[in-house]
Amino acid sequence: MNKPQISSRAKEVIASPIRKFLPLMRAAEDRGIKVYKLNSGDPDLPVPPAFFKAIKNYHQKNLNYAPSPGVKEHVAAWQKYYRQFGVSLRAENIIPTVGGAEAISLALQAVADPGDEILVFEPLYASYRSFSRMAGIKLTPITLSIKNDFALPSLGTIEKRITKKTKAIVVVNPDNPTGKLWSDKELDAVIKLAKKHDLFVISDETYREIRFKGKVSCLLAKKEARDNIILVDSVSKRFSMPGARIGCVASFNDEVMVSVLKFAQARLSAGTLEQVATIPLLENSRRYTTSIKKEYLRRRDVVAEGLRKIPGATFKPANGAFYQAVRLPVRSAEEFVKFMIGEFSYKDATVMVTPMKDFYFTPGLGEEEIRIAYVLNVNNLKRAMEILRRGVEEYGKRLGRQGVLGY
Amino acid sequence: MNKPQISSRAKEVIASPIRKFLPLMRAAEDRGIKVYKLNSGDPDLPVPPAFFKAIKNYHQKNLNYAPSPGVKEHVAAWQKYYRQFGVSLRAENIIPTVGGAEAISLALQAVADPGDEILVFEPLYASYRSFSRMAGIKLTPITLSIKNDFALPSLGTIEKRITKKTKAIVVVNPDNPTGKLWSDKELDAVIKLAKKHDLFVISDETYREIRFKGKVSCLLAKKEARDNIILVDSVSKRFSMPGARIGCVASFNDEVMVSVLKFAQARLSAGTLEQVATIPLLENSRRYTTSIKKEYLRRRDVVAEGLRKIPGATFKPANGAFYQAVRLPVRSAEEFVKFMIGEFSYKDATVMVTPMKDFYFTPGLGEEEIRIAYVLNVNNLKRAMEILRRGVEEYGKRLGRQGVLGY
Repeated sequence: MNKPQISSRAKEVIASPIRKFLPLMRAAEDRGIKVYKLNSGDPDLPVPPAFFKAIKNYHQKNLNYAPSPGVKEHVAAWQKYYRQFGVSLRAENIIPTVGGAEAISLALQAVADPGDEILVFEPLYASYRSFSRMAGIKLTPITLSIKNDFALPSLGTIEKRITKKTKAIVVVNPDNPTGKLWSDKELDAVIKLAKKHDLFVISDETYREIRFKGKVSCLLAKKEARDNIILVDSVSKRFSMPGARIGCVASFNDEVMVSVLKFAQARLSAGTLEQVATIPLLENSRRYTTSIKKEYLRRRDVVAEGLRKIPGATFKPANGAFYQAVRLPVRSAEEFVKFMIGEFSYKDATVMVTPMKDFYFTPGLGEEEIRIAYVLNVNNLKRAMEILRRGVEEYGKRLGRQGVLGY
Repeated sequence: MNKPQISSRAKEVIASPIRKFLPLMRAAEDRGIKVYKLNSGDPDLPVPPAFFKAIKNYHQKNLNYAPSPGVKEHVAAWQKYYRQFGVSLRAENIIPTVGGAEAISLALQAVADPGDEILVFEPLYASYRSFSRMAGIKLTPITLSIKNDFALPSLGTIEKRITKKTKAIVVVNPDNPTGKLWSDKELDAVIKLAKKHDLFVISDETYREIRFKGKVSCLLAKKEARDNIILVDSVSKRFSMPGARIGCVASFNDEVMVSVLKFAQARLSAGTLEQVATIPLLENSRRYTTSIKKEYLRRRDVVAEGLRKIPGATFKPANGAFYQAVRLPVRSAEEFVKFMIGEFSYKDATVMVTPMKDFYFTPGLGEEEIRIAYVLNVNNLKRAMEILRRGVEEYGKRLGRQGVLGY
């Protein structure tokens, strides 16, 4: 008699590249080291007070399931929210989800079966990789490079990767982990390809309002591709409330929405309290998003200034989200992160960042790259960047002495 | 140029049998008909006040992601909760989930790959069917019958259905939709089979405390099968709070828990507020569960009394959960439900129940059966049962006249 065996998907799905160093981090904190956390996309900004006010005004004695298609008034708030971007959706075309994460998972499953393929751009936010592996979907990566600011290759290069099994293209805009803001030209190219090959476009606009140039928009406004586009969205970043677990799937494609509703019925509902309490935020989103965009722009500049002081660091200031991708003068960013958390400190403090390697599918890529999430206030961020600079310097010295892994 | 095509899983997953008649129900309400809702497992009982008190005492300005392995104090509360059933789990062996639904989905995916098989007993709670179809897992149904109170067939009969692809057996105890309370003999038989064939047992104990005979227990207390059992649990029913979306997966099998954690990292976290606010409930669960069990027992008896007045209704009073399965003297319970909602009323009121057909996999089974969820207080429940009786009578008369579908 043996032990029962777990599934292959369970064996093969990867641990979160963002979360896998948490035990090391806790150990550092236990040693009395202050850790400046630039690893996780977990905003430090306060939640808009209207949210907690609404929570505290919930006076029912019951906490029933929300309807699977969402609390009616919550869906109406999403409708109003999207209208400011020229997108008029019927209630049936929006289904609230448990964060953007569930929206990603449901969108992937609505368009692809086990063995099917979805085109993605690497580096890629890691949850796509996990959800795809869980669902048996193969991701086909088109490699982007930090050297040319993660610009898209030619249409022909992308088109070559499309097979009969390709069902969709994923666009994360603004992008996590790179901070890339897609150009209109790039978006149009993807839509053209999708229409030509009858592919869906899964448009992940979690960071929609956090962009540092151009006008805030929504891909669903592209009327020519309404049957193709599936929007994946979230309140987590624009209202600084990832713990609320509220997002949505939206599409003008009714077949997609009928499917997502059936999936949503299986899991019953997203949180009732949070659906109710996010209504005032969605109805007046600009009140919140205008100021946080300014704050993240200030921070982006602090990060850029700090990185410029690190000899050998390669980057271009990001134009969106609150992430900065950077290539450090190290052979292994993972080893560097372990060094920073496990050994290094400056004035009893250190910095935690995310190695980019696991955001790539192609082996060997991203080894020298890290993602910085600027979720600290400007003063702490300045300190953190100073510590990072000193850490890189010290790491270089040590490795130089060992003569093995130095740059 | 065509439209992009949705996936086969999207096409084939079924709509919720419980939720698919909601539009008809809303139409009835729009006509001014009061609908007594006995269709959904959505408790009418008040949430324990400690929950809302904790919610209102949340004074942080942030609402961060919870850790993927759960809020530490929340997991500790689950540990304390399980100890009362003789089950001592380490924190690593419990991962909070977005309701019992997510727990089911993650457990299924941890043990089976596309094409693999899982043994289930039909009728079966519909979310298993949807999540399995989404994950490409084949469910092998062992048919139970209302005629002998949904008793398990012989071990040999079950064993015959096990193939090389079988990975697990699902036990929902007490059961949804039948209200069946499993006997020790039945549980031991399943465990014996699981150990013999190296199968997992997915034990869904959402309704653990709502049982009307015997002692409350947890299958994880079966020490001889610790590597086999994966517990799926939820606070939704025992604390009357399905809108909180809090459940958990628990297992002594570390490989399973490492897998579930990787899956959980992909979706980041369960709701932060609700994890915090359910701590006092889990820590003092008996304070709440003792009284709700009594209340549901009273209701079970009201339902049984009402059903005994319906000529031709076949049932045995359920011993657990808050469901009563019953065979009505109708050819199609679906048509009967449509009649009740679409045409019938008594004193401007009608009753909504759930047809059982979609809880069966084998075509033709359960056509005459309904599930009654007794989520109304005793007075309303009495009225509802009276309306149901009159509805069955009227339906029989009409069909008798038409001479087509009568019983």
